[in-house]
Amino acid sequence: MEVTRKNYKDSLSTVYSAIEEADFLAIDGEFSGISDGPNVSALTNGLDTPEERYTKLKKHSMDFLLFQFGLCTFKYDQTKYITKPFNFYIFPKPFNRTSPDIKFICQSSSIDFLASQGFDFNKVFCHGIPYLNQEEEAQLREQTEERRNQQANGVGTPSFISPSSSKGPAHVPEEHKDFINRVVEKVEALFSNSEKTLDLDPCTGFQRKLIYQTLNWKFPKGLHVETVETEKVSICFIFTFFDTFFGGKLVVGHNMLLDVMHTIHQFYCPLPEDLQDFKEVTMCVFPRLLDTKLMASTQPFKELITNTSLAELEKQLKENPFKSPQVETTERFPSYDTAQEQLHEAGYDAYITGLCFISMANYLGSFLTPPKAYISARSKLIEPFFNKLFLMRIIDIPYLNITGPDLQPKRDHVLYVTFPKEWKTSDLYQLFSAFGNIQVSWVDDTSAFVSLSQTDQVQIAMNTSRYAESYKIQTYAEYIQGKEKEKPGQTAKTWGEDGWVKSNYTSSTTSGFGYPRYAWTADPSVFRSQGTEEALIADGWSHYSYPDSTGSKKMKTDGV
Amino acid sequence: MEVTRKNYKDSLSTVYSAIEEADFLAIDGEFSGISDGPNVSALTNGLDTPEERYTKLKKHSMDFLLFQFGLCTFKYDQTKYITKPFNFYIFPKPFNRTSPDIKFICQSSSIDFLASQGFDFNKVFCHGIPYLNQEEEAQLREQTEERRNQQANGVGTPSFISPSSSKGPAHVPEEHKDFINRVVEKVEALFSNSEKTLDLDPCTGFQRKLIYQTLNWKFPKGLHVETVETEKVSICFIFTFFDTFFGGKLVVGHNMLLDVMHTIHQFYCPLPEDLQDFKEVTMCVFPRLLDTKLMASTQPFKELITNTSLAELEKQLKENPFKSPQVETTERFPSYDTAQEQLHEAGYDAYITGLCFISMANYLGSFLTPPKAYISARSKLIEPFFNKLFLMRIIDIPYLNITGPDLQPKRDHVLYVTFPKEWKTSDLYQLFSAFGNIQVSWVDDTSAFVSLSQTDQVQIAMNTSRYAESYKIQTYAEYIQGKEKEKPGQTAKTWGEDGWVKSNYTSSTTSGFGYPRYAWTADPSVFRSQGTEEALIADGWSHYSYPDSTGSKKMKTDGV
Repeated sequence: MEVTRKNYKDSLSTVYSAIEEADFLAIDGEFSGISDGPNVSALTNGLDTPEERYTKLKKHSMDFLLFQFGLCTFKYDQTKYITKPFNFYIFPKPFNRTSPDIKFICQSSSIDFLASQGFDFNKVFCHGIPYLNQEEEAQLREQTEERRNQQANGVGTPSFISPSSSKGPAHVPEEHKDFINRVVEKVEALFSNSEKTLDLDPCTGFQRKLIYQTLNWKFPKGLHVETVETEKVSICFIFTFFDTFFGGKLVVGHNMLLDVMHTIHQFYCPLPEDLQDFKEVTMCVFPRLLDTKLMASTQPFKELITNTSLAELEKQLKENPFKSPQVETTERFPSYDTAQEQLHEAGYDAYITGLCFISMANYLGSFLTPPKAYISARSKLIEPFFNKLFLMRIIDIPYLNITGPDLQPKRDHVLYVTFPKEWKTSDLYQLFSAFGNIQVSWVDDTSAFVSLSQTDQVQIAMNTSRYAESYKIQTYAEYIQGKEKEKPGQTAKTWGEDGWVKSNYTSSTTSGFGYPRYAWTADPSVFRSQGTEEALIADGWSHYSYPDSTGSKKMKTDGV
Repeated sequence: MEVTRKNYKDSLSTVYSAIEEADFLAIDGEFSGISDGPNVSALTNGLDTPEERYTKLKKHSMDFLLFQFGLCTFKYDQTKYITKPFNFYIFPKPFNRTSPDIKFICQSSSIDFLASQGFDFNKVFCHGIPYLNQEEEAQLREQTEERRNQQANGVGTPSFISPSSSKGPAHVPEEHKDFINRVVEKVEALFSNSEKTLDLDPCTGFQRKLIYQTLNWKFPKGLHVETVETEKVSICFIFTFFDTFFGGKLVVGHNMLLDVMHTIHQFYCPLPEDLQDFKEVTMCVFPRLLDTKLMASTQPFKELITNTSLAELEKQLKENPFKSPQVETTERFPSYDTAQEQLHEAGYDAYITGLCFISMANYLGSFLTPPKAYISARSKLIEPFFNKLFLMRIIDIPYLNITGPDLQPKRDHVLYVTFPKEWKTSDLYQLFSAFGNIQVSWVDDTSAFVSLSQTDQVQIAMNTSRYAESYKIQTYAEYIQGKEKEKPGQTAKTWGEDGWVKSNYTSSTTSGFGYPRYAWTADPSVFRSQGTEEALIADGWSHYSYPDSTGSKKMKTDGV
């Protein structure tokens, strides 16, 4: 179903009920470009830390426009899944002369690619649904309220204000803390009883602002705040609860980090500076995520799936030992035929992503005793894949862990080498020719990481480079220390302090190139012998594959 | 006629012959946005110098895409003009994986505006003609040549190389100067004889590079340089002359500065830093320009035309004392009907612009004795309007003078005021309330120019501000001095040094707000009494109007 500016209002209830009844949702975005960086290899270094990668994507990808948002809902009905695919066309049409006049970047290669796939740009630009993020919406509402109050002379006019800031906790002055805390307690109580609304006592405009800011920070979703003037002077609040858009459902995507970042950035709030803050915001908007590219790169799928791009994945999951799921598209929705590929229409890609998820989930059921043909989106079997977003081309960190600390692989075998800008990969291979197999990950024109195959070679390399003039070698630890020094005043946050549970996925052995290896073994017979779902998920399906590394200086990022 | 990627090659000869036979051409561009600046008023300050305005437009407008180029040719045929309108759809489709992947900005308000006019974005993105500027083309040709030579082992392969740099004169080492000078002399001789090609002696690769660079700088158009390997070793050059695209014809546009800048930037070379270099490049690409918005804002039109936006101008030029020109569109070209406005299709806007030019030119003929109904594009009567591009919203400099020095109006009555960022225009009016009528031109959030009505009030204002703490006042001269100090190492170029003729348009009297007033009088009776074309153009139609000033801090730039 196509949703544009023309039928948006009328379609909303259909969208809401499709989400509400769904077992899980799949999403996909089409963007006006992928990377604004001067040099793609610098953007996706194979030894980026998750923080570095997040910062790069935030800096170089958020000025593109997410202009088609695909959503496909999946509801299991006895023997098959009922799907409802939606294509939302999105365009930031300015609301009026004073509202923001968004500028966005288009990357020719991306536009050309979409054009070659028959993408309808006219539909985007002529009929795209306009949007505001939370803060812009609040500003607009305030303006509207002001104007309405001026017109009506401020008497008996109901006014609607959304929380005005999602940037951080409000600074509450000492004298108002008690008052604000009491409001928060009342709201929290509201969550545990059956009441839907809450009236507050009259308060001052400043207190009202504090309430907005605090509630918006503490309860970024599920809360609607309205101001109603019941008399000339007294102002009270009504709180109504509404289901958030995705309502805690499992949201599936394929290589979905950029989709998640764009969705939050465009419709919710500007992306936070800090990766940890981003993770918190993500959990508010998408409480449960699953990335099919990560799933397909992980045991037990890793050995069976050679190419994890969406189109190839879909093909492979039609073949033995996998099974195509039974799906049916409700009437009034266009029926997608996977034989006639419509890839890169967001709704279709979301649909395919959902099918891939179902096939892989059901395959996990084959390891159970007795085997199960249908594994639901609520099965504990798939929990190990929750909230881990695939990281493109990082050698030793397969995913961004949204609900816990990220993997910290040992990089004892990695050297940071700086050299004249004329050097090429071949110069580095020559320099390290005595050390056997090496891996080169370019940082910029004059530096690269070089991974040695043996950690004990590091000291030898350091020693031989001592008198070199044209190049310089540092250990990875020295490099990180140098970077930390560059950002004074930043104190390192630890997850423990913020009340996060430490993840179970810690590296237990180090072998070969120093990549983390996990306790879990990939032998399917082990699954069978253990038998229960609980046992299967005990340590997760966490024997991850290592995505392709950035060997070439000119390698391009693709979005699949 | 629509020209896209699909019919581009086949259409070229039609385009060329239309240009060749034309009396004049009209152009117009449609862009993906107008201004990338944070604050439009800062971008178009009413007291910008031409240098400042050029720098701002270069910085804030060139990242948009010129995606529709309109060209309309006009050929006079006894009683009427024959027109041939073309709409070129343009898109920088990457040629291959190593060619530039252009990123361009879209401004929502501009895109939305074009969408509302029925603009076909799909045609742009799916079928837009790809392009390279001179340097990119040269690089691509070199790559292609290299590959071809590798394949053919370098024997007998003709290779085509375009001049590789249009950035500036080549640095020619002392030992090669004689050689290069001889080549230049031979090429110059070629211009004055009937030969079309010239063979040079064999030379080294380095000399060849110098020749390319030098010729490209000295003869940026009209010259095609080819390298042909006639034997294994000897390399010689063939020079073929071809008409440049616009071939010295008069090119008419409406408010055309941005069109000219974009055309050069996108298809010729990156815009130079310096305004004077820009003027030189412009003269190479467009040897003769005429801006109908400037013409309409100038005597004798100024008094008759109240609104110089293209749509309004076209309407007013249908009424007395003007006459709609007789035009006819050749078969195979779509016939535009001015009653059914198709404004903001580039080809239509170019067509309308041409009509406006004809009406105004013919009106000038009515002042002759005996009056002439038809004034050709080669008439001396219109020469005073050549190569002067309208400057939007500069109070006292109506145009950018491409072939000479710019006007330097006295700004003795102007103050530069800095103040806290909370200040609004009303605060400035209040501050200067003792001085009668003032004009405020915002520079940024904390500064503005204030034009007083009397120059002798300046000293009083300076005196009273001496002890002010919240604001600070400088004279315009002090402000300019301060700015000059900010850019060390830059020596001021004067036109005299570069061999430019000093313009006749110098301010002869200063009145009122200190705007320049010119010797020419607007009284039509004066024209009649003088009678001849020569007398009419003696001092130009140079009694310029003053375009609307930027009064409001929120005023937006429109492209009309």
